Amino acid sequence: MEFITLGHGSGGKLSHRLISELFLKYFQNEILIKQDDMAIVPGSSMNWAISTDSFVINPIFFPGGNIGKLSVCGTVNDVAMSGGIPLYLTAAFIIEEGFPLAELERIVQSMAETAASAGVKIIAGDTKIVGKGQADGIFINTTGFGLIPEGRNISGRNAQPGDVIIVNGTLGDHGVAVMAERHGLEFSVPIFSDCAPLNEIIALLLENVPRVNVLRDPTRGGLATTLNEIAYQSNVMIELWEEKLPVKDEVFSACEILGLDPLYIANEGKFIAILPEEFADIALATIKNHPLGRDAAIIGKVVDKPKENSNNKVYLKTALGGKRILDMLAGDQLPRIC
Amino acid sequence: MEFITLGHGSGGKLSHRLISELFLKYFQNEILIKQDDMAIVPGSSMNWAISTDSFVINPIFFPGGNIGKLSVCGTVNDVAMSGGIPLYLTAAFIIEEGFPLAELERIVQSMAETAASAGVKIIAGDTKIVGKGQADGIFINTTGFGLIPEGRNISGRNAQPGDVIIVNGTLGDHGVAVMAERHGLEFSVPIFSDCAPLNEIIALLLENVPRVNVLRDPTRGGLATTLNEIAYQSNVMIELWEEKLPVKDEVFSACEILGLDPLYIANEGKFIAILPEEFADIALATIKNHPLGRDAAIIGKVVDKPKENSNNKVYLKTALGGKRILDMLAGDQLPRIC
Repeated sequence: MEFITLGHGSGGKLSHRLISELFLKYFQNEILIKQDDMAIVPGSSMNWAISTDSFVINPIFFPGGNIGKLSVCGTVNDVAMSGGIPLYLTAAFIIEEGFPLAELERIVQSMAETAASAGVKIIAGDTKIVGKGQADGIFINTTGFGLIPEGRNISGRNAQPGDVIIVNGTLGDHGVAVMAERHGLEFSVPIFSDCAPLNEIIALLLENVPRVNVLRDPTRGGLATTLNEIAYQSNVMIELWEEKLPVKDEVFSACEILGLDPLYIANEGKFIAILPEEFADIALATIKNHPLGRDAAIIGKVVDKPKENSNNKVYLKTALGGKRILDMLAGDQLPRIC
Repeated sequence: MEFITLGHGSGGKLSHRLISELFLKYFQNEILIKQDDMAIVPGSSMNWAISTDSFVINPIFFPGGNIGKLSVCGTVNDVAMSGGIPLYLTAAFIIEEGFPLAELERIVQSMAETAASAGVKIIAGDTKIVGKGQADGIFINTTGFGLIPEGRNISGRNAQPGDVIIVNGTLGDHGVAVMAERHGLEFSVPIFSDCAPLNEIIALLLENVPRVNVLRDPTRGGLATTLNEIAYQSNVMIELWEEKLPVKDEVFSACEILGLDPLYIANEGKFIAILPEEFADIALATIKNHPLGRDAAIIGKVVDKPKENSNNKVYLKTALGGKRILDMLAGDQLPRIC
């Protein structure tokens, strides 16, 4: 069995072997193959959407994915949430000395497969090796680029009172799957991360629906934190309907055992769309028609401008008719979830 | 004294405070301020040069710079080596729990100053916190974007027999400064890293010189490894002249003590330019006229196509008239140098 050594990060012979025998083998495309210190991407009159994310998830392999798949999905999804069409990714690895090469290959292979399925090319990369104990296995940064077709204006600042809020499926799957794997928990019904690239389903939505005001993926901090961000950016209040929130029974049970709240747990294959009520039906039908949207639901609405200086911008209408304020996540219930 | 906690990576309240009170304070610009999950950059008919790098240098503060300054210079320089004009950077931080906030602020401030001096904007970011012992202080990834003016064709594949090789100053300063700091060595003449953004001096060179075939910054692996890469890409041989290589006396002495070879040590404010001999004088004069080029020298030339299957593509003509083959770096003489 082969392991990563400090020499793999030297910039010399071992680095070149790692690039040609592993990264180029899986990531090969006409831009990356040039092997200059930078990639060259053709110009376009359209605007670019650019997003960067580092992935430090623990454990690196989990039910439904691994750090490689996640590193592609996470950044593809951030770009897609601007209405941009993701085209390119860079990938930068920080690897701990002694990391098994076979595991690195599984991760790289998974990145290549996910990138291919999302239609994006990995065009530039970097590898740094740090000593034993100076990192926890492997960290991956991806930075993504997508072109935004003219006329699209999707932003967290655009939510309007009266808009409906749609989510494309069940909440909390990713966070609970990772926590269960981390702590060696087994459930009678296994729970899988929802980790998936959302650019295809988003493209269909934007094709079929004349106006979408906000798109965002509720990752770290979960749905509640994401909606708080949007409520602040748009200066509106948001009402969620508890009985409409899609949560799998097994995730709900696991959350009760683990003391977690599905509204604050990271998702990696979910988005919320905020759009005018008149387009709610066509939007929901379009989303439900895609494999990643079967459990989609309208889960609430944008209700009003908040009272001046109020910090309470998002609330849940409970099944019993009560109201529960949903603040941003305070502290961290699940470190290293992405 | 305040320290980074896992909560700063939650995506919730503490993350938002860190962004608004630290990152936005220093990095503020019209793109970053929108605070969506992605940055939007205007389209252009010109091609983009894109480069990504993670920085894991140890120690994070060293004579002449710190990991923040380095993370801006390194990526700005990679973009500039394509003939591109660096415009934007993303910045992604992986920080160990317990890291002092005051040190993070020094690093962020230094990034902001260096970005301003290089004329680039930091347009998107990410922060991940890992537990104590799961990273070594702080790692920073930057990804850079620059526009390439029409007609520029600069690449490691373009070196031509007869071309001269110019370097803009002394070799090995960065690597030796970092090693000295790491091991607590003191020299009678202090040694400083050459860490600097090279885009301005490169812009002047490309303005004044009608044809530049190759530009590259000899970072990890040093001058010898960089020239080997170019010799392979261009399928040429390269001859270096030992007596012309600029090395500071104090760096030379330190290398003798530490058992290092200045030709294999990382530089962070140096570039080599390979260009037709007819433009050697104007190129050298232009470089020497800039503060970052005072010690510039013509250090060798591209000599010929290599013999078939020969691995020896770069050699040094010694002061005594001998020939020494300069292979790529094997193993790693200086881990975590950038």
